Amino acid sequence: MLFLVRMKVNIPDTLAADIKSDLFSKEKEYSQRAQKDGKIAALWRVSGQFANYCLFDVDSNDELHELISNLPLFPYLDIEVTALNKHPNSIR
Amino acid sequence: MLFLVRMKVNIPDTLAADIKSDLFSKEKEYSQRAQKDGKIAALWRVSGQFANYCLFDVDSNDELHELISNLPLFPYLDIEVTALNKHPNSIR
Amino acid sequence: MLFLVRMKVNIPDTLAADIKSDLFSKEKEYSQRAQKDGKIAALWRVSGQFANYCLFDVDSNDELHELISNLPLFPYLDIEVTALNKHPNSIR
Amino acid sequence: MLFLVRMKVNIPDTLAADIKSDLFSKEKEYSQRAQKDGKIAALWRVSGQFANYCLFDVDSNDELHELISNLPLFPYLDIEVTALNKHPNSIR
Amino acid sequence: MLFLVRMKVNIPDTLAADIKSDLFSKEKEYSQRAQKDGKIAALWRVSGQFANYCLFDVDSNDELHELISNLPLFPYLDIEVTALNKHPNSIR
Amino acid sequence: MLFLVRMKVNIPDTLAADIKSDLFSKEKEYSQRAQKDGKIAALWRVSGQFANYCLFDVDSNDELHELISNLPLFPYLDIEVTALNKHPNSIR
Amino acid sequence: MLFLVRMKVNIPDTLAADIKSDLFSKEKEYSQRAQKDGKIAALWRVSGQFANYCLFDVDSNDELHELISNLPLFPYLDIEVTALNKHPNSIR
Amino acid sequence: MLFLVRMKVNIPDTLAADIKSDLFSKEKEYSQRAQKDGKIAALWRVSGQFANYCLFDVDSNDELHELISNLPLFPYLDIEVTALNKHPNSIR
Amino acid sequence: MLFLVRMKVNIPDTLAADIKSDLFSKEKEYSQRAQKDGKIAALWRVSGQFANYCLFDVDSNDELHELISNLPLFPYLDIEVTALNKHPNSIR
Amino acid sequence: MLFLVRMKVNIPDTLAADIKSDLFSKEKEYSQRAQKDGKIAALWRVSGQFANYCLFDVDSNDELHELISNLPLFPYLDIEVTALNKHPNSIR
Repeated sequence: MLFLVRMKVNIPDTLAADIKSDLFSKEKEYSQRAQKDGKIAALWRVSGQFANYCLFDVDSNDELHELISNLPLFPYLDIEVTALNKHPNSIR
Repeated sequence: MLFLVRMKVNIPDTLAADIKSDLFSKEKEYSQRAQKDGKIAALWRVSGQFANYCLFDVDSNDELHELISNLPLFPYLDIEVTALNKHPNSIR
Repeated sequence: MLFLVRMKVNIPDTLAADIKSDLFSKEKEYSQRAQKDGKIAALWRVSGQFANYCLFDVDSNDELHELISNLPLFPYLDIEVTALNKHPNSIR
Repeated sequence: MLFLVRMKVNIPDTLAADIKSDLFSKEKEYSQRAQKDGKIAALWRVSGQFANYCLFDVDSNDELHELISNLPLFPYLDIEVTALNKHPNSIR
Repeated sequence: MLFLVRMKVNIPDTLAADIKSDLFSKEKEYSQRAQKDGKIAALWRVSGQFANYCLFDVDSNDELHELISNLPLFPYLDIEVTALNKHPNSIR
Repeated sequence: MLFLVRMKVNIPDTLAADIKSDLFSKEKEYSQRAQKDGKIAALWRVSGQFANYCLFDVDSNDELHELISNLPLFPYLDIEVTALNKHPNSIR
Repeated sequence: MLFLVRMKVNIPDTLAADIKSDLFSKEKEYSQRAQKDGKIAALWRVSGQFANYCLFDVDSNDELHELISNLPLFPYLDIEVTALNKHPNSIR
Repeated sequence: MLFLVRMKVNIPDTLAADIKSDLFSKEKEYSQRAQKDGKIAALWRVSGQFANYCLFDVDSNDELHELISNLPLFPYLDIEVTALNKHPNSIR
Repeated sequence: MLFLVRMKVNIPDTLAADIKSDLFSKEKEYSQRAQKDGKIAALWRVSGQFANYCLFDVDSNDELHELISNLPLFPYLDIEVTALNKHPNSIR
Repeated sequence: MLFLVRMKVNIPDTLAADIKSDLFSKEKEYSQRAQKDGKIAALWRVSGQFANYCLFDVDSNDELHELISNLPLFPYLDIEVTALNKHPNSIR
C-alpha cells in the first residue's frame, strides 16, 4: 500500500552543530534501513529545497505512522501524507 | 531527470459523454505509450480523488513540457510540477 | 484501517431536478449499504453546510478509492482524505 | 451534540524534557477520564503527524470549551472546531 | 447557545430576475420569523459586500443546521460557522 | 457604527507568569470599562480557542483604532476588522 | 472617515457587448459624481489588472455600503474593505 | 509614478524597549522627510492593526526600493507592493 | 524599468475554435512586436502549464498597464505583477 | 535549461552582526562566480522586499540543486522553483 509523503525539514537556528550532525547521521541510517526493508520504496530531494518526497510501501496506516514518527528528524519535519492507488492507465 | 507532477482532472459538467469517453481512451493510449518509452516512470491515482501523481523521467524541461501539454486531457488539468533530485540518503 | 473523509457537495445550478433527486436517492442507498457492510463506520453532516465527514473502515487504499469513486455523487464532490491511527491515549 | 476537533501539537523546542513528559502524562490522564465520562466519544492520531482528531460529545458549546481549554496541552495546540449533525443517510 | 455564521451570497448570473426577487422576499420573511422567534439573535450586513454575519441562538447543532439549511438562499450561500461562548470578561 | 473584530491571542512561551497574569487582569478591567461605556457592545469567546469576537460600537474609525490599540493584550493579538451595517432584513 | 476598497472586476464571458458597454458608461458617470461629491477621494487602476483601489471618504459604514452596493458594476465585483486612520507620523 | 505599499510591523518580543523607541523616532523622522520631499504622497494606519498603507510617488522602481529598504523599521516589516495607474474614470 | 509578470491563460471551454485560434495568432503578433520594440525583454513558458513569465522593460507603470491590458488574451489572463530592481550582487 | 527561482531572505533577529556581514560577502562572491560561469543568467531584487528572483541556466536538476543548496544564505532562504521553457511566441 503506497503513501506519498512530503517532508520539509525545519532545523531551528539554535540547534547545536554536533546535535544536528548526529541527527543527520541517525536519519541516514534509519532511512537506509527502511529502504533495505522495502518500507521506503523511493526517496527524492526536492530541487532547491531542504525537503523530500518519500514513497512508503506499508501494510497499514499504523505501520506508516510508526515509520514516520520514529524518524530521528521527526520533531523538525512538516509532513503531508497522500494515500495512493494503482492508476487504471498504469502498465506496471 | 525526474519531475513529480500532480494532475487534478476537472471535466466540465457540459462535456458530452462520447467526447469524454473518447478523451479518456486517447489519454490511456498516450499515457501507456509514454510509460513504455520510459518517459513516465510511475503513475498513481490519488486515493479518493480524480487526481494523479505522475513521475516523469525526461532529458529536459522542453521534453517535460512537450509531454504534458500534449496529454489529451491537458485542457482539463490543474498541474503542479516539482523538480526532483537523487536524495543523499537514497540507496538506489 | 480508518480514513476520515471530508466531502463538500457542489451540485451545479443547471442540473435538472429529477436527475438531482435520482442521484440523491442512489447516494442514500449506496451509503446505507456501505454502512451495513461496515465499510462506512460513521457519517456526519457538517452543521450549516452541504458537506459531510465520513469515517471509512477499509482493508486498503484500493478499497477506499473504490468505495469513494463509486459514490453516485462523486463527480460533484470536493474530497479530502486523512489517514488515521489508533491514538496512544485512546481507551478503546 | 457532536463536535469534530482537529488538534495539531506544537511543542516549542525550548521546553525542558521533564516538563514535556509531565505534560504528556497529565494529558493522557485527562483525555482518558473524558473518554470514560463519554465526553470524548472517539480519538484518533493523524497518520504521520503529531496531530489528532477528537470527537467530543457534549451538552453545549460551554462544555466543549471547558473541556478543550483545560487540556494540559492546550497552550501548545492549534485547534479547529467543526459542529456536526446526524446525517440524513446515517443508519445509526 | 450562540453560533456566529458568516454568509456570502453568490447569485448565479443566469438566475431569472423574477426567481431572484421571489427568493429574496422569501428569505426576508424566513429571516424575520426566525428573528421574532429569537433564533436569529442578530443580523448584520458586511459593509461593501453581498455578505452577512448572523448570530444564531439555538438549543443544539441540529436546530442550527435545520435553520440554516432551510434558508431560501441556502443553495447560493458560502457559509462559515463559529461556535461561541460567554467570554470570561463579559459583563452581561 | 458597528465593527466586528476577531482577536486571536498569542502569548509567547517566554512571557513570565506574573507579567502574564498582570496583563490579563488589566485586560479584564479595560474590557469591562469599554463594555460599561457601551463601546464594546458584545464580547464572545470562540469555542475551543484562545480567541474572541468583539463587537465594537463606535463613532469613527479613529475611536475604533484608539480602543483596540490600547488593549493591554494588543501586542499579542492577531486582529481582523470587519465593518458592519444594519441588514435590510433585520427587525431591530 | 477613510476606507480603502480594492475592487476586482469579473465580467462574465457571456455578458452581451452592449450591456457591458452600457454598464461601463453608467459606472463612469456614477464614479465621477461620487468623486465630485468628495465621497470617492481617490481612484487608481491596479497596473496590469482589471482591478482598482478606491479611497472612500464617508461619514459612516452605512454611507460606505450605500455607495459601494449601488455601483453599476457591483454584481461583478470582488471587494475587500479596509478601515483607515490618520497615521501618527503623517504630516497632513 | 504611484505604488501602494502595505506594511505590517512585527516587532520581536525580545527587542529592548530603548532600541524600540529609538527605532520608532528614527522611523518618524525618516517618514516625515519623505513626505515633505513628496516621495510619500499619503500614509494611513490600518484600523485596529499595527500596519500601514503608504502611497509612494517615485520616478522608478529603484527609487521605490531605495526608499523602502532604508526605512529604519525595514527589518521588521512584511511588505506588499502594488503598482498603480491613473484610473480612466478618475477626474483628477 | 523591469517588471516580472506571471500570466495564467484560462480559455473558457465555450469559446469557439476559430475565435480561439484568431486570438492566439493576434496574441503572437502583438507579443512579437512588443519584443522587437524591446518592451518585452524576455518571455518564457512555465513547464507543464498554460502559463507564462514575461519580463517587461518599460518607462512607467502607465506603459506597463497599456501593454498588458491591450494583450488580445487579456480578458482570459490571471495576472501577477512584481516590480524588480537591479540586484546589488548582479554583475551586469 | 532555465529555472526561475524566487528567494525570500529571512535573517533571524539573533544572528550576530559580524556573522551576518560575513555571510553577505560570501553570498556576493558565490553569486558573482555563478554569474560569470553563466549558471546564474539573471538576478533581480524584488522592489521593496528582501527577496530576489534568480534565473538559473543549468544542465540538470542536480546542477540546480547543487548551486542553490550551496548558497551561503541557503539556511535562511524560502525558495520556490519554477521550471521554464522557450515560449512559442518568443523571437529569441
